[in-house]
Amino acid sequence: MIITYNPIGIIHSPFKELTSMPIQPASDTSGPGSVEIFAPYIEGLMDLEGFSHVILLYHMHEVRDVTLAVTPFLDSVPRGIFATRAPSRPNPIGLSVVELVRIEGDTLHVENLDVLDGTPLLDLKPYVPEFDHKVDASIGWLERVKGNVKGTISDDRFK
Amino acid sequence: MIITYNPIGIIHSPFKELTSMPIQPASDTSGPGSVEIFAPYIEGLMDLEGFSHVILLYHMHEVRDVTLAVTPFLDSVPRGIFATRAPSRPNPIGLSVVELVRIEGDTLHVENLDVLDGTPLLDLKPYVPEFDHKVDASIGWLERVKGNVKGTISDDRFK
Repeated sequence: MIITYNPIGIIHSPFKELTSMPIQPASDTSGPGSVEIFAPYIEGLMDLEGFSHVILLYHMHEVRDVTLAVTPFLDSVPRGIFATRAPSRPNPIGLSVVELVRIEGDTLHVENLDVLDGTPLLDLKPYVPEFDHKVDASIGWLERVKGNVKGTISDDRFK
Repeated sequence: MIITYNPIGIIHSPFKELTSMPIQPASDTSGPGSVEIFAPYIEGLMDLEGFSHVILLYHMHEVRDVTLAVTPFLDSVPRGIFATRAPSRPNPIGLSVVELVRIEGDTLHVENLDVLDGTPLLDLKPYVPEFDHKVDASIGWLERVKGNVKGTISDDRFK
């Protein structure tokens, strides 16, 4: 079974290369940017402005390799790819919850982007804590490195 | 630009039809089920067991129509599709944060599933509150119907 999608938009960001990028929206270096929605889909933005945060699902188009065991930016030993948020996934779908500042026509102005400039957007969903937040979730190997995400930037390991 | 993905697994759930399903993992009627990971990807499950919750990204294979304005299960007036979590999206990618009970070989046993039986899995990510939770997020039109998600089930509107 092969699943095919067409991008619904494109993400514009200050990050032009896969190195020296913020590794998550929660990183100190994440930045402002915009999400351009292609003309056929603009009608779908109705009512979105009332939400403070949106979930971006995007295709990490510059990631070439699939590695099932990866050494994540936040650790020094290999972890299973599905126990990390590293980009070298079998299906390189990225997920970022970003702050929605305002919408102007076909453009969403957002904060806290951690996405490469020119990334194709697959889907856009409203962030709803009642649906998406799990209180007291435990986080496995990440427990030990919690807090380090703010100051960590990417290197060339997934280039 | 056409983006192609191959499923990495399949979701097994008690829900055999698109009607009368829980509309979110937070619904009272969401249930236990399992996620089967295909053989080539099992190595990627290493270290996942320490996480209490996982994010499932899946292809909603039974949803046929794309509707840019939809009347969501939780409301009585049409909303822009990107301001809802309704399935009739241009790219029908579903997102559910579910509880990971245990892993046995190629199978993740999970709770709080709201996914149709037989749904192809696209990606699996660890749920990390530091990355994914935004405190005090505002939720637009959903503010008024907050709390109703627990008791609401699907009907045939997205069949």
